[in-house]
Amino acid sequence: MAQYPSKTIEKAVEQLSRLPGVGSKSALRLALYLLRQDADMTKQLSESLVALRTLTEQCVKCHNYADQTICEICDNHFRDHHTICVVQDARDVIAIENTAQYRGLYHVLGGVISPLEGVHPDHIQIGSLLARIQQATADGQPISEVILALSPTMEGDTTAFYLTRKLKDFSIKLTTIARGVPTGGELEYADEVTLGRSILQRTLADK
Amino acid sequence: MAQYPSKTIEKAVEQLSRLPGVGSKSALRLALYLLRQDADMTKQLSESLVALRTLTEQCVKCHNYADQTICEICDNHFRDHHTICVVQDARDVIAIENTAQYRGLYHVLGGVISPLEGVHPDHIQIGSLLARIQQATADGQPISEVILALSPTMEGDTTAFYLTRKLKDFSIKLTTIARGVPTGGELEYADEVTLGRSILQRTLADK
Repeated sequence: MAQYPSKTIEKAVEQLSRLPGVGSKSALRLALYLLRQDADMTKQLSESLVALRTLTEQCVKCHNYADQTICEICDNHFRDHHTICVVQDARDVIAIENTAQYRGLYHVLGGVISPLEGVHPDHIQIGSLLARIQQATADGQPISEVILALSPTMEGDTTAFYLTRKLKDFSIKLTTIARGVPTGGELEYADEVTLGRSILQRTLADK
Repeated sequence: MAQYPSKTIEKAVEQLSRLPGVGSKSALRLALYLLRQDADMTKQLSESLVALRTLTEQCVKCHNYADQTICEICDNHFRDHHTICVVQDARDVIAIENTAQYRGLYHVLGGVISPLEGVHPDHIQIGSLLARIQQATADGQPISEVILALSPTMEGDTTAFYLTRKLKDFSIKLTTIARGVPTGGELEYADEVTLGRSILQRTLADK
C-alpha cells in the first residue's frame, strides 16, 4: 500500500481512482497537480461536477441528456421530425452530430440487449420508442424512417434484430448505417467479415 | 467543435480537460460515466477534491504535504532525525517510503534549479534546508548525513551541484542515490552513460 503524506490526499486519490481508466498512480498525479494549482481551479472543477450530476436532465422524448425537459434537438423545428436515428447512448449522438450529415431526431436506448449481462428489452428504451412512433402518427406527424445506428457487435445486432421484428408492422422504412471498410483505413488490414461484406454490398462509384 | 447535449456536460468536460493527461474525449467519457452512477459518487468526489485543496497543509519543517503543521514523518520520534533525504517533490517521498528502505527525514525542495525555465535557487526550498540544518545543530541534534535523491537529469544534477557547494562547509556526510542499471532491466538496453557509470562504480558482489 502506498503511504500518502496526508489523509486528504489519500481520500482524494481513493475517490479519483473510482473513475474509469484512472489508476491510483494517475489519481495521485491528479491530486498533486490540483495542490500545485490555484485553489479556484479545484473549486470550479468540483462545482461543475456537482452541477453536472444535479442539473443534467434526460429528454422525455429521446432520452438524450439535456438542460431542459425536452432536449435542443427534439425542440428544434428546423430538424426533420419524420426520421428517428436509434443509438445506444448519448456519446453516439455526439459522434453523429459531429459528422454534420444527419438532420433528423434521435432515440437513445441507454444500452443494448445482452442476455449475458442480464439486459433485457424492457431494461432499455424500446417501449418508449414504440410509444413515440405511435404518438407521432396520432399527432399527424408520422415517422417515415427509423435508422438503426447500433454498434456492429453481437449485442448491437441482437438489439437491431429485436427492433426490426417489433417495427415490422409499422409502415416505416427501416435502415441500418452502412458497414464496410473505414475511410482512411488500409484495405489489407480490414478483417475478412468487413471486407467480404463491403464487396457484397458494393455501391455504384461516384462519377 | 463537439456538440454537447447540455451546457452542464459542456462545462464539466471543459473543467475535466484542464487536468493533465485528460483530453476532451476522456473528459466526456468521465462526465457520462458520472451521469450513469449514483449521485452520491459525484458528491463524494467533489467534496474530497475541495477538502484536498483547502485542508492539505505543507509541513513547516520538510515542506511535504501534511494534515497538520508538522507532517507525520517529521513528528515520528522512531525515525532517524540525523539524516535528511533531499527530494524534488512530494511524489518522490511517497516513492521512497514505498521501498521501506529509509527511516530518516526528508526535505522537499518543491522543484529543481532550471535557468531555462526561470527557476533560481531562491525559488525552491534550499534556504530553509540550510536553516534547518543550522537549527538542528543549535538544538543539539545535528544532522550527520544529507542524501541527495534528485532525478539524474540536467536540472537535478545542477541542483545537486549547487547543494554540494552550499553544504561543503558543514561537517555533514553528503551522499547521492546510486546510479546504475535498473533491477529487472536488460543490460543491452541500458544507455551507454548508465552502463559506463555502473562499471566504473561497481560494488563488491554479495557472497
